[in-house]
Amino acid sequence: MIIAADNLRITLPPIASAVAQSAPAAIRETALRCRDAGARAIDINSGPLGRDPAAGMTFLVRTVQEAVDLPLIRNTTGLAAVAAGLAACKRRAVINGVSLERRRREGFLPLARQYDADIVGYLLGPDGHVPADAAGRMEAAVALFNECERAGIAPERLIIDPVVAPLVWQDGNRQNMAVLEVIRTLPDLLGFPVRSIAGLSNLTTGAPDADTRRRFQCAFLPMLAAAGLDVILMNVLDPSVMQIAEDCGRIAAGTIFTWR
Amino acid sequence: MIIAADNLRITLPPIASAVAQSAPAAIRETALRCRDAGARAIDINSGPLGRDPAAGMTFLVRTVQEAVDLPLIRNTTGLAAVAAGLAACKRRAVINGVSLERRRREGFLPLARQYDADIVGYLLGPDGHVPADAAGRMEAAVALFNECERAGIAPERLIIDPVVAPLVWQDGNRQNMAVLEVIRTLPDLLGFPVRSIAGLSNLTTGAPDADTRRRFQCAFLPMLAAAGLDVILMNVLDPSVMQIAEDCGRIAAGTIFTWR
Repeated sequence: MIIAADNLRITLPPIASAVAQSAPAAIRETALRCRDAGARAIDINSGPLGRDPAAGMTFLVRTVQEAVDLPLIRNTTGLAAVAAGLAACKRRAVINGVSLERRRREGFLPLARQYDADIVGYLLGPDGHVPADAAGRMEAAVALFNECERAGIAPERLIIDPVVAPLVWQDGNRQNMAVLEVIRTLPDLLGFPVRSIAGLSNLTTGAPDADTRRRFQCAFLPMLAAAGLDVILMNVLDPSVMQIAEDCGRIAAGTIFTWR
Repeated sequence: MIIAADNLRITLPPIASAVAQSAPAAIRETALRCRDAGARAIDINSGPLGRDPAAGMTFLVRTVQEAVDLPLIRNTTGLAAVAAGLAACKRRAVINGVSLERRRREGFLPLARQYDADIVGYLLGPDGHVPADAAGRMEAAVALFNECERAGIAPERLIIDPVVAPLVWQDGNRQNMAVLEVIRTLPDLLGFPVRSIAGLSNLTTGAPDADTRRRFQCAFLPMLAAAGLDVILMNVLDPSVMQIAEDCGRIAAGTIFTWR
């Protein structure tokens, strides 16, 4: 299981003002802290990038790449920003993400093909809503692979995100058990080693405090690891959750176990 | 997931001397602490019971029953002690356990039938060894259900223990992934809601210290819970592992989630 940092968020004031002022220090520091904490990839969650999204994304990607030599995942809805980020990227990029929503499909798939990028595909319906059950998620996955084929993208480029549900949702528990089932069964269903990614922070949206967030993330992360998840997108700067992620890797690795 | 305490062990000096002197205080105190920590069943792991095993077991069962109103799981290899424990038991008892080893089968199955007790069945080969893979464990499960049928015991009385492997075993990781697969698939394979139990402490046999034990128990327990485990046998007096066990119950319960 590859651990990817979700810590570089433009919604955080120090990152937002670093981008606004083209001042690399806070971005570089966050990237270095993530790497030192054990992240093997970094998600650049740029959100809104102000008046010139392409320039903002180029600056973000260049700054992170100068600080750390890690794969980058680009997470934004702005097409111009994604294109600029892909152009600035030294390694194979990951676009986060496509779904069956027409706007996302038609925008991101041609870009993924042009840059031979990996692309994260969310298991959402064409209306952007979470499917009701595991079967609905499987259907969305099959439809996404078909869309990729139609766009000339190899199926191996698509990384499936079954969309972890907030526990506070009325059917959050049931949804998250469906998420585990999809991760576990998708490779058999589609007949090749489908890669999967999941965002852990979403689980604890609305949690009353940091300790509660940590507790439930620590309880759900091993469930994802045992289901065979390939990439976990998480707060790598929480030592408790990182410890569990690394220990899960040791248990579920399929290799000989070591305590450290 | 029902949390059962594995803390009442005759190998612990205070419990051993309590049994030897027929002094109930230490036994009662351990049972009360387990109940207060959240245990919903208590395993009486009597081990060797000295010169009069039947009297020792009767004393243990009566003392625990006087202290707490919880189901008891009896864990010993001594036939006379098990029989005495069953006779002293007020609720439906659980015998821990039978396997395909002739000695255990022929000893415990008639007792289980006589007392209409639940019985834990270990997925071991007839030679007492752990099977090589998940398929070997499935075969052992089918054979155990057949043995129960032959002995006139209803299949619902058998609780399957797929035998958690110590991580330090050369193939410990692989064995434990097979354990998860067996817990997950056995109900479908056999066509009824087969109950399962697993002992968590076995996972960390040989761990260098308490913190390492705790870390890996916290990482593996959610994997067991997500696989659908019915009873977890564990050290209920470790607050970190108990917290994870309770949180896993909240996530994997199939009911509406609550933070507390």
